[in-house]
Amino acid sequence: VARRSSQLVLGLDPDLTALWPAAESAAGDGSPAQRAAAAVREQCRLLIDAAGPACVAVKPQVAFFERLGAPGWAALEATVAHAQAAGLIVLADVKRGDVPHVAGVYAQGLVGKASESPFGEIRGLGADAFTVNPLMGRDVLDALVQVTRPAGAGIFVLVRTSNPGAADVEDLELAGGAPLWERLAAIVDRLGASGLGESGLADVGAVTGATEPQHLARMRELMPRTPFLLPGVGAQGGEVEALAPAFAPGHAGGLVSASRSIANAYEVAGDPLAAPQAAAAEAERLREIAWTLASA
Amino acid sequence: VARRSSQLVLGLDPDLTALWPAAESAAGDGSPAQRAAAAVREQCRLLIDAAGPACVAVKPQVAFFERLGAPGWAALEATVAHAQAAGLIVLADVKRGDVPHVAGVYAQGLVGKASESPFGEIRGLGADAFTVNPLMGRDVLDALVQVTRPAGAGIFVLVRTSNPGAADVEDLELAGGAPLWERLAAIVDRLGASGLGESGLADVGAVTGATEPQHLARMRELMPRTPFLLPGVGAQGGEVEALAPAFAPGHAGGLVSASRSIANAYEVAGDPLAAPQAAAAEAERLREIAWTLASA
Repeated sequence: VARRSSQLVLGLDPDLTALWPAAESAAGDGSPAQRAAAAVREQCRLLIDAAGPACVAVKPQVAFFERLGAPGWAALEATVAHAQAAGLIVLADVKRGDVPHVAGVYAQGLVGKASESPFGEIRGLGADAFTVNPLMGRDVLDALVQVTRPAGAGIFVLVRTSNPGAADVEDLELAGGAPLWERLAAIVDRLGASGLGESGLADVGAVTGATEPQHLARMRELMPRTPFLLPGVGAQGGEVEALAPAFAPGHAGGLVSASRSIANAYEVAGDPLAAPQAAAAEAERLREIAWTLASA
Repeated sequence: VARRSSQLVLGLDPDLTALWPAAESAAGDGSPAQRAAAAVREQCRLLIDAAGPACVAVKPQVAFFERLGAPGWAALEATVAHAQAAGLIVLADVKRGDVPHVAGVYAQGLVGKASESPFGEIRGLGADAFTVNPLMGRDVLDALVQVTRPAGAGIFVLVRTSNPGAADVEDLELAGGAPLWERLAAIVDRLGASGLGESGLADVGAVTGATEPQHLARMRELMPRTPFLLPGVGAQGGEVEALAPAFAPGHAGGLVSASRSIANAYEVAGDPLAAPQAAAAEAERLREIAWTLASA
């Protein structure tokens, strides 16, 4: 974050109905899935090249790749490699969570390697961190961190998400009076306490939706050393100006994610051929707002 | 279930360190990931051929395929096709959950198709149902069902899982006195009410861990028309004999999943070369216990 003067995370949600013209025309030959995967790969490459310089990380939303089957997974691998070659951190948005022995397999695939294979070491996707769903409890999170921490990687655990449905479960009032998400926050804080880096920040982050900024001060109180991943800026209605409490432990305490508002920034002026320039300008605008706010 | 006289779900968790000899030797040439994917594909084919006749469905644990990248995803696609050709339902164990517009993309990839693609229709994995994490709330579940219901597919929503960590979040006491999982059960019941089939069972199921059978009677009270998926039989410590309340709405009300206890059944006699025969015998044993219990 310090090196790039940016807390901005470029969300990669390659929607097949909103590809840039240059990406759509890169589809080439093959089956519909192969053509779509080639276009998705090019869309991500163009987005990274245009908006990446204003960002510290990319956040591929894995659903959009997985939907295309094996060619989609290959496009995801190429996108991870391209982002890392451009100096960007890769946060795989997968929201994984499963019983401990399966959780470890997910972590191996996303940020580690399957070293116990009789066929030689199998390197996974090679991401730097991924998002996690904590519903199944602490043994699941422990199993993930047992893989991510030695790999120098991280996880971002859902605490309070940005969708309206978050009120149905995450906001439920517990017997003690606090909402469920405060309990999730306490679990995240405790798990990260044993993984503090030189910066003073933990290797276990929290996904804290930017659409409910009134919760951010309380979250920071409960998770003083936790990096917050703040999705929902832009298309989902969150305003970057409202995020100040996230930055209390320094700039890297709050990573601001935006995807459609950058990829589709060209729609304001209406010229799809100028999509890269519009994306670059919007990313730089968001970067500067967040950086200035966090410096205050 | 009625046609095959079976409620048994064959879990496919192809662990690279516990492959059957015939699967390991099918690895062929290529990169470690390609060789592992070929072995995993063969392991699943052999397991389906051996234990499948005693089962109604297979439940591939997608982590074990995803870890192998694009070749792993291709092996998953081949496994789905092989299971369906053998007359088995495919429940993809993915535990997905994400904001509504992403949830719809996951559902398209797992059981539907991406029909809005400019490259022609992209058929997804072609599974018949998949597992879902409900932490993010009802708008996520609604978005999934909007895709699965028209596709004639289903979802199984986590209500109370079989791992010890389930106590940390799923069992939390809410302000009204009930545990969180009872609230999840109510959400599942309501969502399935509008998707009842001829059998009287809903198209929204629940994952109800078999390791805590004392909860099953209460779950059945809260979800009278919901098919229960009961993992954790065998290796995780659940006993199939304790599951009677699951079967109240009929045999199909309780689907019993087992994976390692079938794939590794040969370990009792100690002869890996007899793994297929041991798997077939163990699957038939579990099928008969469950069927007899549900008929009582």
